[in-house]
Amino acid sequence: MTQRIVIALGGNALGSNLPEQMVAVQRTARAIVDLIEEGKEVVIVHGNGPQVGMIANAMTELTRSDPERYIPCPLSVCGAMSQGYIGYDLQNALREEMLRRGIDKGVATVLTQVEVDPDDPAFAHPTKPIGSFMSEQEARALRDERAYDFMFDPQKGYRRVVASPLPGAIVEIDTIRTLFESGHIVIACGGGGIPVLPTEGFHLKGAAAVIDKDFAAEKLAEQLGADTLIILTAVEKVAVGFGTEHEEWLDELTAPRARALAAAGEFGEGSMKPKVEACTRFVESGEGREALITLLEKARDGIAGKTGTRITR
Amino acid sequence: MTQRIVIALGGNALGSNLPEQMVAVQRTARAIVDLIEEGKEVVIVHGNGPQVGMIANAMTELTRSDPERYIPCPLSVCGAMSQGYIGYDLQNALREEMLRRGIDKGVATVLTQVEVDPDDPAFAHPTKPIGSFMSEQEARALRDERAYDFMFDPQKGYRRVVASPLPGAIVEIDTIRTLFESGHIVIACGGGGIPVLPTEGFHLKGAAAVIDKDFAAEKLAEQLGADTLIILTAVEKVAVGFGTEHEEWLDELTAPRARALAAAGEFGEGSMKPKVEACTRFVESGEGREALITLLEKARDGIAGKTGTRITR
Repeated sequence: MTQRIVIALGGNALGSNLPEQMVAVQRTARAIVDLIEEGKEVVIVHGNGPQVGMIANAMTELTRSDPERYIPCPLSVCGAMSQGYIGYDLQNALREEMLRRGIDKGVATVLTQVEVDPDDPAFAHPTKPIGSFMSEQEARALRDERAYDFMFDPQKGYRRVVASPLPGAIVEIDTIRTLFESGHIVIACGGGGIPVLPTEGFHLKGAAAVIDKDFAAEKLAEQLGADTLIILTAVEKVAVGFGTEHEEWLDELTAPRARALAAAGEFGEGSMKPKVEACTRFVESGEGREALITLLEKARDGIAGKTGTRITR
Repeated sequence: MTQRIVIALGGNALGSNLPEQMVAVQRTARAIVDLIEEGKEVVIVHGNGPQVGMIANAMTELTRSDPERYIPCPLSVCGAMSQGYIGYDLQNALREEMLRRGIDKGVATVLTQVEVDPDDPAFAHPTKPIGSFMSEQEARALRDERAYDFMFDPQKGYRRVVASPLPGAIVEIDTIRTLFESGHIVIACGGGGIPVLPTEGFHLKGAAAVIDKDFAAEKLAEQLGADTLIILTAVEKVAVGFGTEHEEWLDELTAPRARALAAAGEFGEGSMKPKVEACTRFVESGEGREALITLLEKARDGIAGKTGTRITR
């Protein structure tokens, strides 16, 4: 049976701005088409931290330039725009790389919403940084004007933070499944999906939040019945004792050990911890499911068992 | 056999800004779900003039606010963002209206690119206005800075104009067909599709243009083998002798008569003329194909033959 893979792309797969993205997607497409060429069926999830931040900044500048004409733009709308922006570049790079290798498959970007729980504790503790760093003065103005939250980095300055709730139901799951099963390469849940809150009367209300793309990919992999979740990032393997004399790079990691190591604080909050957590959840969700964390460029070697950290039940 | 309909939505279906769009899509969704409720299969194409203009303005303001960090954003990228922005609101309004009437069907927004010809004469004569009106000073600055073209309206001021080339191949046609045939309500070719120029080596290069959404809808209707093209707009019927004492509102229009009337200058450039032209092309493209031009709110009455202008071969 064909291997069905959901791939979660880290920030290094897209870069942080327009010119970086145009270059980065080419390298990313090569890594993904390496898998497609071997007959794997893939669905791609990507992050959108810098991109949704850039769009939110642009919409803020627009409102400032003409406050009578333009109202502030909700973050959920900026998220929808970022799916269009990233999907456009990424699907073209994939299409181009496939055609160059003689592979004729459709590539589709599906606008995706993901339900979140209004009672998710994440809403009380915004942790996800978006957009670029700014001065104290700029941050103060936005805090007063829009009630935005900020984090502070002594070296780089202030950066907006938003809530990062856990993903619930994927609203467009049937669309993604239909395209996946018909042989398309699907780009879905971009930026973790547009977070929406179910309300009475069927309305989905956009939330000022960004869902972690690794958790969204995990949810999608479960719901699609994928065999493998691959998280492509900026490191080749998961480490324990990182930066100490006991540092060890892991080839294999079982779910119970992953949970124990995470509980012991081995993995960085907001970086490796959610990746390991997403992989653990996925392998625990069903028989025969595996996960892999590796470097973007090592996707093919990783899936062949030559490198990366393989997470099993 | 089920009637397959491609619907082209005019500017009145979406409004011109964020709050207008949120309200307008609800009325639009009611009109479209009226047809879905009767068992019609529909694909929806929409324009994006005000929206892509708003996004382009926002990206321009962003570059101005920090020219070292942000390069100017290509119009094609703004078009991709506008598909996300409009698709998000429109698909949610459709989903909500269907669920309210007990209809359980998937709604999907497909990021769509449409090839254009680099030798299209439209590139030498930009005619499509986008974004909002501005002062002579603002227009002059953008002309000098970006080589933008402008139109001038004595009452309203200056407005950017871009080329409006004819649509060629729809890059994502297989994706749209797969979803349509599986029973989805599909939103595709948003804003007429992102215009792209084929280049050597499979790369699709974004063009600084906006494709007419009625022509894009016509192309899509042909390629999907639809029975009917419906152009929903701000008037109930097509008129000849508009505003004169010989004014006549048309119930029926054959392709030859439509061509003759268009050649005689009966229809407004950039408003009714391209709509009639798109309908004429569609009915001429195959046996048994019909087109309809009517008011957004009259879609159901129009399809029942009670109102609107019906264009036949």
